[in-house]
Amino acid sequence: MEILKEKIIKDGYVIGSKVLKVDSFLNHQIDVTLFNEIGKEFKRRFQDRNITKILTVEASGIGIACIAAQYFNVPVVFAKKHEAVDLDAETYEAEVYSFTKDKSYKVRVAKKFLSKGDKVLIIDDFLANGNAAKGLIDIVRQAQAEPIGVGIVIEKAFQDGRKKVEQAGVKVESLAIINSMSEGNIVFQ
Amino acid sequence: MEILKEKIIKDGYVIGSKVLKVDSFLNHQIDVTLFNEIGKEFKRRFQDRNITKILTVEASGIGIACIAAQYFNVPVVFAKKHEAVDLDAETYEAEVYSFTKDKSYKVRVAKKFLSKGDKVLIIDDFLANGNAAKGLIDIVRQAQAEPIGVGIVIEKAFQDGRKKVEQAGVKVESLAIINSMSEGNIVFQ
Repeated sequence: MEILKEKIIKDGYVIGSKVLKVDSFLNHQIDVTLFNEIGKEFKRRFQDRNITKILTVEASGIGIACIAAQYFNVPVVFAKKHEAVDLDAETYEAEVYSFTKDKSYKVRVAKKFLSKGDKVLIIDDFLANGNAAKGLIDIVRQAQAEPIGVGIVIEKAFQDGRKKVEQAGVKVESLAIINSMSEGNIVFQ
Repeated sequence: MEILKEKIIKDGYVIGSKVLKVDSFLNHQIDVTLFNEIGKEFKRRFQDRNITKILTVEASGIGIACIAAQYFNVPVVFAKKHEAVDLDAETYEAEVYSFTKDKSYKVRVAKKFLSKGDKVLIIDDFLANGNAAKGLIDIVRQAQAEPIGVGIVIEKAFQDGRKKVEQAGVKVESLAIINSMSEGNIVFQ
């Protein structure tokens, strides 16, 4: 997706060789016009798949999922990462290991919001090690719903997230794929 | 806002006399069609105020803010509530006491995303004790920006959030105002 790549080059910056900071438009400040283009592109890539629900995880995925959902005309469900006092007792949950934080956390979705037969598009901002995506796939399958695909804004192809998701039998569509970021140079696939 | 009130009556439910659960359309599963109506209504109420930025706080505010921002043509910034490894060192921050969890947490916004002269609309899902809204107002003022108003989806008028925000000199616009919820009966203002 060209305008996304241009935006990453223009406003993103690399810290070390693994961290891409895109807080000015993706995950702290949000460029809603760009999000609309992202939403349209996800729709184009999954248009014939009869998606019935979009699943994401708090917090950065929520804005992307909501804007994209307008093009699919389906509800969004966001998995909870943090303790929520009013979360249902009946939840699907998965353990996710975060390399960045070197700890595991649970993601949870109330059972009533995923049904057998749902065709679920999982959306997230980044795909790196793939653990969050795998956790969400796991939750979709616990509900006997179908994980149709994982839609990612920025994939770090030098980490093994895609491999893990594809080994779980789910299609990955990433709008920008980065092969390397050494010495601050972002090289797209 | 009539369709919002009807939705609350139809799909919300009361736990005890203070907790209103609206997780099927507002803060776990998201009804994006309803969010568009909410966004339009915020625009109607703040249309002549030259808003330059929408500020919210993770996680439930993000979807509402993003959909609403489409009607204002401005970026969204969401304050971070949780430790974020890649957050800038230079942040505005405020301490927020949560009655629900009986503890305080910090909300943070990178300084580069709020500028002197910005006219900021603060958006959140609930107004109860007003502490989150006050924290966000504080952050806007630290940046020498102007808090134009606080736009709320559901206000619990039996708690003192509105009073606190108005005492801070900021206008509150709530789309549904609940006067009481005793014995499961939701009474709107």
